[in-house]
Amino acid sequence: MSPVHELPVRVYYEDTDAGGIVYHASYIRFAERGRTEMLRDTGFEHAQLFRDQGIAFAVVSMSINFKSPAKLDELLVVKTSITRLGGASMDMRQDIYRNDTLICEMKVTLVCVDKTLKAVRLPEAVRQLYG
Amino acid sequence: MSPVHELPVRVYYEDTDAGGIVYHASYIRFAERGRTEMLRDTGFEHAQLFRDQGIAFAVVSMSINFKSPAKLDELLVVKTSITRLGGASMDMRQDIYRNDTLICEMKVTLVCVDKTLKAVRLPEAVRQLYG
Amino acid sequence: MSPVHELPVRVYYEDTDAGGIVYHASYIRFAERGRTEMLRDTGFEHAQLFRDQGIAFAVVSMSINFKSPAKLDELLVVKTSITRLGGASMDMRQDIYRNDTLICEMKVTLVCVDKTLKAVRLPEAVRQLYG
Amino acid sequence: MSPVHELPVRVYYEDTDAGGIVYHASYIRFAERGRTEMLRDTGFEHAQLFRDQGIAFAVVSMSINFKSPAKLDELLVVKTSITRLGGASMDMRQDIYRNDTLICEMKVTLVCVDKTLKAVRLPEAVRQLYG
Repeated sequence: MSPVHELPVRVYYEDTDAGGIVYHASYIRFAERGRTEMLRDTGFEHAQLFRDQGIAFAVVSMSINFKSPAKLDELLVVKTSITRLGGASMDMRQDIYRNDTLICEMKVTLVCVDKTLKAVRLPEAVRQLYG
Repeated sequence: MSPVHELPVRVYYEDTDAGGIVYHASYIRFAERGRTEMLRDTGFEHAQLFRDQGIAFAVVSMSINFKSPAKLDELLVVKTSITRLGGASMDMRQDIYRNDTLICEMKVTLVCVDKTLKAVRLPEAVRQLYG
Repeated sequence: MSPVHELPVRVYYEDTDAGGIVYHASYIRFAERGRTEMLRDTGFEHAQLFRDQGIAFAVVSMSINFKSPAKLDELLVVKTSITRLGGASMDMRQDIYRNDTLICEMKVTLVCVDKTLKAVRLPEAVRQLYG
Repeated sequence: MSPVHELPVRVYYEDTDAGGIVYHASYIRFAERGRTEMLRDTGFEHAQLFRDQGIAFAVVSMSINFKSPAKLDELLVVKTSITRLGGASMDMRQDIYRNDTLICEMKVTLVCVDKTLKAVRLPEAVRQLYG
């Protein structure tokens, strides 16, 4: 398993719904920010990888448990780690917390694809992240 | 299993991302539209159920497989059916298609909650939907 | 002025915020759906125009008055008309109603651009829309 | 005029569209984050103001000029200042930059409302922000 990457995320009005809590699909947006910042910490970013190497990461599956509601103005933390590394794909665990309270937990499988959406080998920078 | 409810959904710019395809969290929004319209077809709607009976449906878990990318201007169909009915909870299957092409498939578990977020019995209208 | 194009839009949870009403930026998304469907009624759509003629419509300015709040489950109507037609640009008026209640009113200026974002002449189909 | 509040905002996939650039309504979300953080710097936040004092800020009008497109992975800065302070309302200027490049400029009018959406006097903390 890779070290756990932590990204703080503030809840704004845009993330909430008329139920008075964070809209469930907002957590999927937060998780993507976490994955993106984990990648950026390796010195790479999506736009550059696509421009220079012609590759991108596609989400192929997710499973999510919504454990506790988060609310407006709360500060959450997205905790991301790589749990499996394949040739072209990898599994991540992404848990979102408010302090010690688990808000939601996700398992995400990503595959590295080229411009034709064909699976290609994960870049070395991502492999080294896994350790 | 309930009859399959079908909701057409058009893809707009708001639903896409810089990868040129539908952003993965957009499908979760589309699925919620499908569940909402299935409910509306029974003669009920969220706002009314909350106001009159003090109940709402909370998503407790989802699993999603992204099978094929959808694109701007395409017309998709969200196919929703109830696959299990419990006392306070139910499982749904929600598949999104473009013609015969499966775009993504979801399993969603919902629980009926009162204003304090305590689980309460599913309303009769939803039970009758299941048949 | 062109004929007024009308698009019904249902308010879902995704469109609301913790204030219990429609999030203000959601109306901008609804307006874009209105413009897109007005275009589609001429026999054209964004994806096709970009692919075949290499052109797109960029929003260059908007002004919006929020007159009355809309809520979950309400059915709104986006009323769109072209109020000025230039060589490469056009002005639109887009008003959103719930029955006879004006929810918000917008003025939008769009410019037709090529793939390098250079202004180019509006396509003939849009000109004919204006009458 | 108040001092200018600056909030850095990173562009993620969720903020972009199939045109390869930031979706225009995303800037309205970014602006709301800027206003919220300016408020938080005074020691107040939306959820607390609503709970303790029963007040909220409603956007009544906006005008926006989109000057230059922003793209995936770029780091933007939202610059917010109060340009007019009335009894219950205030005007803000909100400009979004990427380094020295102006991405978009907004004028926003907000009114302070109570739980019945009636205009009420702006809280003292906001008045002091204006100087």
